[in-house]
Amino acid sequence: MDIIKLSSRQERIIELVKDHAPITSEQLANKLNVTRAALRPDLAILTMTGILEAKPKVGYIYSKKPSYSLIYDHIMNIKVKDIMSKPVMLDENTTVYDAIVYLFLNDVGTLFIENNGILTGAVSRKDFLKIAIGSSDMHKIPVGIIMTRMPNIVFVEKEDAAYLAAQKIMEHEVDSLPVVEKSCDELNNEILKIIGKVSKTNITRLFVKIGENK
Amino acid sequence: MDIIKLSSRQERIIELVKDHAPITSEQLANKLNVTRAALRPDLAILTMTGILEAKPKVGYIYSKKPSYSLIYDHIMNIKVKDIMSKPVMLDENTTVYDAIVYLFLNDVGTLFIENNGILTGAVSRKDFLKIAIGSSDMHKIPVGIIMTRMPNIVFVEKEDAAYLAAQKIMEHEVDSLPVVEKSCDELNNEILKIIGKVSKTNITRLFVKIGENK
Repeated sequence: MDIIKLSSRQERIIELVKDHAPITSEQLANKLNVTRAALRPDLAILTMTGILEAKPKVGYIYSKKPSYSLIYDHIMNIKVKDIMSKPVMLDENTTVYDAIVYLFLNDVGTLFIENNGILTGAVSRKDFLKIAIGSSDMHKIPVGIIMTRMPNIVFVEKEDAAYLAAQKIMEHEVDSLPVVEKSCDELNNEILKIIGKVSKTNITRLFVKIGENK
Repeated sequence: MDIIKLSSRQERIIELVKDHAPITSEQLANKLNVTRAALRPDLAILTMTGILEAKPKVGYIYSKKPSYSLIYDHIMNIKVKDIMSKPVMLDENTTVYDAIVYLFLNDVGTLFIENNGILTGAVSRKDFLKIAIGSSDMHKIPVGIIMTRMPNIVFVEKEDAAYLAAQKIMEHEVDSLPVVEKSCDELNNEILKIIGKVSKTNITRLFVKIGENK
């Protein structure tokens, strides 16, 4: 058996409540030509799921808030690895000018900077624009000078909830987070390898996708 | 009556199914020390909402996909006016340099350009960066020259679904949409007044908020 959908009678009840709210179970039973007793299981399910609200002595109204626990549960099951995209990376010795050209070529908002595959920094369109309106020579300054450097970069791991990525993006006011894989070097220092990125674009795409799954 | 939450017995059933899936209703009844008949309404609600799946001759399993129609319905009820933020606007005669400074002062990614309150254009961080690495004098060029001009701007209205805004952002690959109010001038031409904006940031914030309402 697959996921059970609402029955056509339940769908019909929802329509009636939308059109006539508040409406009592007696009025609903009349409109549907059934007994109140016959409607009871349907109404139980519809209020239980939060689709309808039962107001005592008033009747049923259509609730715009379904049971949040369902949505919450669903959202928490989506992982970073399900929505991440390929990071665009550069070496920190690249000049600012070349980095900007690379940003346009790849049509991204943030470049991640690496040194032998290890994440060392990140630089955004905003960082570049700040330099570009200054008096520095973009052809001479390496991107390593203007980037945000580790350990000041917020990141996520691929098994984290996509939701956590969205929270970190909002909390730290960044456009994009690197997705990293942690390991240790020979001196037992933690090193971070970059394997992906999650941006506001990925979150917006996810939001569109959740709505599509009607 | 507020939104009805799952009962503690229903929560307990979910936990048991998560731990022991697949599990039959008889096994569940044993573990909970109740009769199978007593469990029937709870199991009906839990499968109805898509939290559990009932596999014939196998038992109940935990479904990671709740009934999408609930999520869909909820998402479609959130309107642009519920999530929009204040637009940052400038006159099209402002120089590119001053516009960039204004962008930083207001900490936004897109400026909307107006003429007597009427939306005429939009210019993004990306547009500015493109000019900044060129050889033009940013102190001389007015922002009106580099902006995307109406009617090439995708917009939404305040009663539209926030979901539509997210779709348009993804489809047209923009960071931000103006929210407009339509009216007519004395010659009966449609004019658009800008009253807000919806960006990927607003959508990401909304996503975080949906998840918070546990």
